[in-house]
Amino acid sequence: MQDLYPSRVGAEPALAPRRDPVLHGPSRGSLGEEQRRKLEHDGYLCLPELLAPAESDVLLAELDALRRAPEMRGRPEVVLEPDSEAIRSVFDVHRLSRTVERMVQSDPLLSIVQELLGSDVYIHQSRVNFKPGFEGKEFYWHSDFETWHVEDGMPRMRALSVSLNLTANTPVNGPLMVIPGSHQHYVSCPGRTPSDHYQQSLRRQEYGVPTREQLALLVERGGIAAPTGPAGSAVLFDCNLMHGSAGNITPWPRSNVFVVFNSVDNTLAEPFAGIAPRPSYIASRDFRRVVRA
Amino acid sequence: MQDLYPSRVGAEPALAPRRDPVLHGPSRGSLGEEQRRKLEHDGYLCLPELLAPAESDVLLAELDALRRAPEMRGRPEVVLEPDSEAIRSVFDVHRLSRTVERMVQSDPLLSIVQELLGSDVYIHQSRVNFKPGFEGKEFYWHSDFETWHVEDGMPRMRALSVSLNLTANTPVNGPLMVIPGSHQHYVSCPGRTPSDHYQQSLRRQEYGVPTREQLALLVERGGIAAPTGPAGSAVLFDCNLMHGSAGNITPWPRSNVFVVFNSVDNTLAEPFAGIAPRPSYIASRDFRRVVRA
Repeated sequence: MQDLYPSRVGAEPALAPRRDPVLHGPSRGSLGEEQRRKLEHDGYLCLPELLAPAESDVLLAELDALRRAPEMRGRPEVVLEPDSEAIRSVFDVHRLSRTVERMVQSDPLLSIVQELLGSDVYIHQSRVNFKPGFEGKEFYWHSDFETWHVEDGMPRMRALSVSLNLTANTPVNGPLMVIPGSHQHYVSCPGRTPSDHYQQSLRRQEYGVPTREQLALLVERGGIAAPTGPAGSAVLFDCNLMHGSAGNITPWPRSNVFVVFNSVDNTLAEPFAGIAPRPSYIASRDFRRVVRA
Repeated sequence: MQDLYPSRVGAEPALAPRRDPVLHGPSRGSLGEEQRRKLEHDGYLCLPELLAPAESDVLLAELDALRRAPEMRGRPEVVLEPDSEAIRSVFDVHRLSRTVERMVQSDPLLSIVQELLGSDVYIHQSRVNFKPGFEGKEFYWHSDFETWHVEDGMPRMRALSVSLNLTANTPVNGPLMVIPGSHQHYVSCPGRTPSDHYQQSLRRQEYGVPTREQLALLVERGGIAAPTGPAGSAVLFDCNLMHGSAGNITPWPRSNVFVVFNSVDNTLAEPFAGIAPRPSYIASRDFRRVVRA
């Protein structure tokens, strides 16, 4: 398969144009025209009350219990903070949590992603990021698609992520930051990918990192937005949107659930980096479409 | 001299009441009544245009030149980032920069601090913090007074800090965060102070760090404020206000000049930790009062 988006191939880092549309299907009414335009133009869209407050409280309690469960320690789905033993992320939460599973299989979310991707969808990845108070460390800038393409073999830009806030995302507790418009550029990164890179990269990324020049250029064009919101609100964003978040020294955890929907017409090939595929709890090869519950 | 504010003495960490007023002198018109009340109640006050934009641009250029000057490398006044060789801070900038010196010797700033401290003042410390783009690391929560008392021998809470923004402080580039009202409590910290602690602590503090329980209590009472503003704006705050800031992954540096005015009636004694005094560029023992230029 031709590599339309080469990165980490030893070439000079570059900004290449996107070769795929952002909206892959016509409007079918699950979003307004203005919301579709916003997503196409900026690469992200806020969904103010994806879960009702009561639902998101239940979900938070459920995932907190998961985090505290002694049997979770040492499982491969569990990733620790770079400088401590605090749990940073747990993968595969749509299999571990009934509430997440239900959210993924329900409207409005399922209709929205099916409409935007113009096809049925499957779950490429899901996780909860806890970003605990006092010690939650930053996530440096990255395009998810770059990693999914290079390390997982996702051929095209035809996936959408939803980040659901489990706690209030405020300006001070390390909220999601995005570079509006950056999804229109493919950031080809320096370096080459070592094997088994993922075991390290989920704690602190060292490959697939844009250069400072690339980031400065993207920010000069689009600025930085930090869409905040209460628990239950969500941000839907394009797979190629450059995003990151600062650390969290406040006492308030900034926890979210992150689910990636990929088009069933865009399933994974061999990783373009020529490495072994990452495990299924990070990059699923179960391509069965999500069915409405 | 009696230690009115013991900390790092091996006792249980505690929140003790403040034993000093916040406003040490009557109003003389340099600030409005509402501003005085705000400072007394919250422990900080924004000064929207302490320097005109042109002045702050000149100052930024001057301090950037200082940062790039090869002869500054290796000087004790220069502190590096914890994980890189980027310059984090340069001390004694009121001696190294004519513009800072002039600001300190001029109204409105000098009149304000003289009025609030109820006496003549001298400079206890000055520094520029660069917090460079992409890699500027956090400053964890701390009360400056705790350190100045324990490590420098500052007897009472009768000092004020001004933090002048050299670049825009935005919500996303690691702005100053404060806990309003926290200046009314003295946070006695765990641990004991090793000798020559400062060489390490200026890069990353390990002693004089409040416990998470203390911080959670202060935040529960006062919340967190992140007063942002353009270059040239400033924040004036009480020496005992709990404050910190997150790291900066944006391309925009968050640089500021930080100057501490202490009352000439509150000059340094021996450090209460029983250690050798820190060097004069960190904790000045030149107690000569600031004279209006």
